[in-house]
Amino acid sequence: MLTFFHAPGSCALATHLALEHSGLPYEARKVDFKNQEQRSPEFLKINPKGRVPALVTDQGILTENPALLVYVAQLAPEAKLAPLDDPFAFAQMQSFNSYLASTVHVAHAHRYRGYRWSDDEAAIATMVEKVPQNMRDCFSLIENEYLRGPWVLGENYSVSDMYLFTICRWLKGNEVDINEFPRVADHFNRMQEIPAVQRVLSQL
Amino acid sequence: MLTFFHAPGSCALATHLALEHSGLPYEARKVDFKNQEQRSPEFLKINPKGRVPALVTDQGILTENPALLVYVAQLAPEAKLAPLDDPFAFAQMQSFNSYLASTVHVAHAHRYRGYRWSDDEAAIATMVEKVPQNMRDCFSLIENEYLRGPWVLGENYSVSDMYLFTICRWLKGNEVDINEFPRVADHFNRMQEIPAVQRVLSQL
Repeated sequence: MLTFFHAPGSCALATHLALEHSGLPYEARKVDFKNQEQRSPEFLKINPKGRVPALVTDQGILTENPALLVYVAQLAPEAKLAPLDDPFAFAQMQSFNSYLASTVHVAHAHRYRGYRWSDDEAAIATMVEKVPQNMRDCFSLIENEYLRGPWVLGENYSVSDMYLFTICRWLKGNEVDINEFPRVADHFNRMQEIPAVQRVLSQL
Repeated sequence: MLTFFHAPGSCALATHLALEHSGLPYEARKVDFKNQEQRSPEFLKINPKGRVPALVTDQGILTENPALLVYVAQLAPEAKLAPLDDPFAFAQMQSFNSYLASTVHVAHAHRYRGYRWSDDEAAIATMVEKVPQNMRDCFSLIENEYLRGPWVLGENYSVSDMYLFTICRWLKGNEVDINEFPRVADHFNRMQEIPAVQRVLSQL
């Protein structure tokens, strides 16, 4: 059995979508960020980083979206969520996921979590100001270089689509109109029509 | 043939070490960051992100350490650089690599590349101030939670050791004494004795 810890609005949605697509049995548990549950002693035993996603498995606990997305795809190969048998295509998928995790998510995090990198309120305000432009720069690259179409990796739908969809949901809060990026917007609209996506969103 | 683009002092060292351990033929090319070569039209054709590492293969170009580390391990399975046949162990490795890429490297980047997230010089100075504490927090977690010993994943040496070693080399410049973390320091010292590590360092 898999127990999945997530929080509404967080990046954990990517792995949540992968679990829902996989057909694997799992239990989803919300971590209450508003009441700082992620910093509670109980949750820090699950994830000492105090973050979501976290996946409790029979073998131990795993964290970090890029790792979890591949793990879920490997547990359910019949769901074909990743190009598991093609090292180059797999590396392209991993590269995209890593870019989302270490650059795009980080750009976004400077809006809500600037305190991680500065203790000065005025400094944090200057970070918030720069978020829209940084998100635009990231999404220009995604639009023009990385979203091959119709799906991120081309013809084959994969966990990278779920991860991109997750981060696209943050654009509006970052004062970026997704329609500035027509191919990304089209991808976002098609994702919203997928039943597994609708099922997860209705549970958040 | 593989052509590998890197820069001395950058995180590309992790993939450089993996290539050297793999036994695969590769050509290493330095990108001159001091003269902003990473922003040149020629290099942006190789990596539109303007960053290293980048690996040119017969099938196309790949970027991002977590993707490249696995790709090199998969191209040379006999070198046993990753637990390729054990999904849970593989996920643990990927989780560690992702933490280094999206949290630890990002913490460090606020010392030298604060301009990515703020246009205000005084704000950037406050980010620089916080880097030592953020790196200490990250390395406390690595010391106490993630470095299983003797290697990151336990008994088996892997690309995660090469990535950890790469980031450990930044601690001094971040005003953190590696000896505050005795298990990390021991790992670092053992890494320096490995011939493939010595060969790469001598070429930088």
